[in-house]
Amino acid sequence: MYLRSTQELTHAAAQVILQGAIAQAESMGVPQCIAIVDAGGNLLAFLRMDGAKVLSQLSATQKAITAASSRVPTGGVPGDVELKLAFATGGQLTNLKGGLPIVIHGQVVGAIGVGSGTGDQDVEVGQAGIDALMAVLS
Amino acid sequence: MYLRSTQELTHAAAQVILQGAIAQAESMGVPQCIAIVDAGGNLLAFLRMDGAKVLSQLSATQKAITAASSRVPTGGVPGDVELKLAFATGGQLTNLKGGLPIVIHGQVVGAIGVGSGTGDQDVEVGQAGIDALMAVLS
Amino acid sequence: MYLRSTQELTHAAAQVILQGAIAQAESMGVPQCIAIVDAGGNLLAFLRMDGAKVLSQLSATQKAITAASSRVPTGGVPGDVELKLAFATGGQLTNLKGGLPIVIHGQVVGAIGVGSGTGDQDVEVGQAGIDALMAVLS
Amino acid sequence: MYLRSTQELTHAAAQVILQGAIAQAESMGVPQCIAIVDAGGNLLAFLRMDGAKVLSQLSATQKAITAASSRVPTGGVPGDVELKLAFATGGQLTNLKGGLPIVIHGQVVGAIGVGSGTGDQDVEVGQAGIDALMAVLS
Repeated sequence: MYLRSTQELTHAAAQVILQGAIAQAESMGVPQCIAIVDAGGNLLAFLRMDGAKVLSQLSATQKAITAASSRVPTGGVPGDVELKLAFATGGQLTNLKGGLPIVIHGQVVGAIGVGSGTGDQDVEVGQAGIDALMAVLS
Repeated sequence: MYLRSTQELTHAAAQVILQGAIAQAESMGVPQCIAIVDAGGNLLAFLRMDGAKVLSQLSATQKAITAASSRVPTGGVPGDVELKLAFATGGQLTNLKGGLPIVIHGQVVGAIGVGSGTGDQDVEVGQAGIDALMAVLS
Repeated sequence: MYLRSTQELTHAAAQVILQGAIAQAESMGVPQCIAIVDAGGNLLAFLRMDGAKVLSQLSATQKAITAASSRVPTGGVPGDVELKLAFATGGQLTNLKGGLPIVIHGQVVGAIGVGSGTGDQDVEVGQAGIDALMAVLS
Repeated sequence: MYLRSTQELTHAAAQVILQGAIAQAESMGVPQCIAIVDAGGNLLAFLRMDGAKVLSQLSATQKAITAASSRVPTGGVPGDVELKLAFATGGQLTNLKGGLPIVIHGQVVGAIGVGSGTGDQDVEVGQAGIDALMAVLS
């Protein structure tokens, strides 16, 4: 009643995710900023690939924080509330595509946020990062 | 002429409001972030329920501040000015639904802001909090 | 290797802690701001007691965040680095007394931060909050 | 006359530095937050090791930014100006130990910032990161 059990990503896991995302981005020829946060939205790992946009550091991180908080992929908030939510959270909640929750055994343990490509490219790279973790866990 | 009488919520009142809101949220199965502020917009009480979104802490608080300031429920600002108001207040004024003023004897003594559900769920939980206070006052 | 098990405070636990702290503050006749955060520093619960200082909301919260991050009571940072740490963390790390980690089975699951009294009073109230949780857990 | 040649760290280099720093921190048994920035102070790579302090994310990054900007290790600013510099830069310039410039052929190409241990431990881990890069370059 007073405590609940949960799981956390280790930094070894964060590195596996990062490598998977980088490999995908390289195969697509799209340099990316990649951020991984824990379930509480605190940064675990980050990499800006050669040629990725400098400001995408910020958006990639906010995508990851948003996905960790909402527990669904970013980009699905209705258009009539997305800017209100952005303002009300000091810009932390973003509705840009490219943030994906990392779900293990039905529990969100963190999220990945990717930015510097198109929204669809960002999602593809983020998913590859998650897939890499799932591969080593299975 | 130089002073006017006013009333303030005690922290006992804030706790009653919080309990009423929590009970409603539990009965709905929707975990919420619940913030209660005084008439000046300063935080009196807050609770993040198990499973509520982390970023909703921020939006719930801004909803409460907005409702305390405007003295009407949040969400009613015309669309052509809501973003201007958000900008002009550094994001503190939000037009998201879920902020309700707490009115006693015709005077706004504070507000409750709720976030993590849909706008309508947030309003329902906030109203339950206010109702709990009214029940002990009557 | 890729996941580690951990425990989180529920909001029921946060409320027990809050009640214990409030009771102690009332018995001392010292109104307090009381903040409880999870292990990642995100706010779980907050209460500002009648007569507590408004700005202590901020310091109480930062004390809690600092204790959750450093995993030791606040106030022990050497004087020659405390301001540097405050600056380097945007003011989030504070060396004011009144922040205590909440340790269960040797693991930090969160922290309590108390502010509005003297440093020693703040610590006493924070400890009473933790004691209340330990009492229900044992 | 109008352009000057410079060199930049690739993300492959950032990963080598990160690995070297992680290996050293693991051998010391001191979990760390490790940030690597380019010569302009923009984040290239980051990792928070299991058990490192959450708030050290911020200080580690500011140490790296400071070292990249000043082109000397952090911690050497005279005490009578360090807080003035912190104020004047919005907290970005820190005089905490643990930030080291990365110098290649006499040119600063970036910096590493480490935080969560003592100042001396932070420097040791940062130096190990730089050494790892030098080893692959030679």
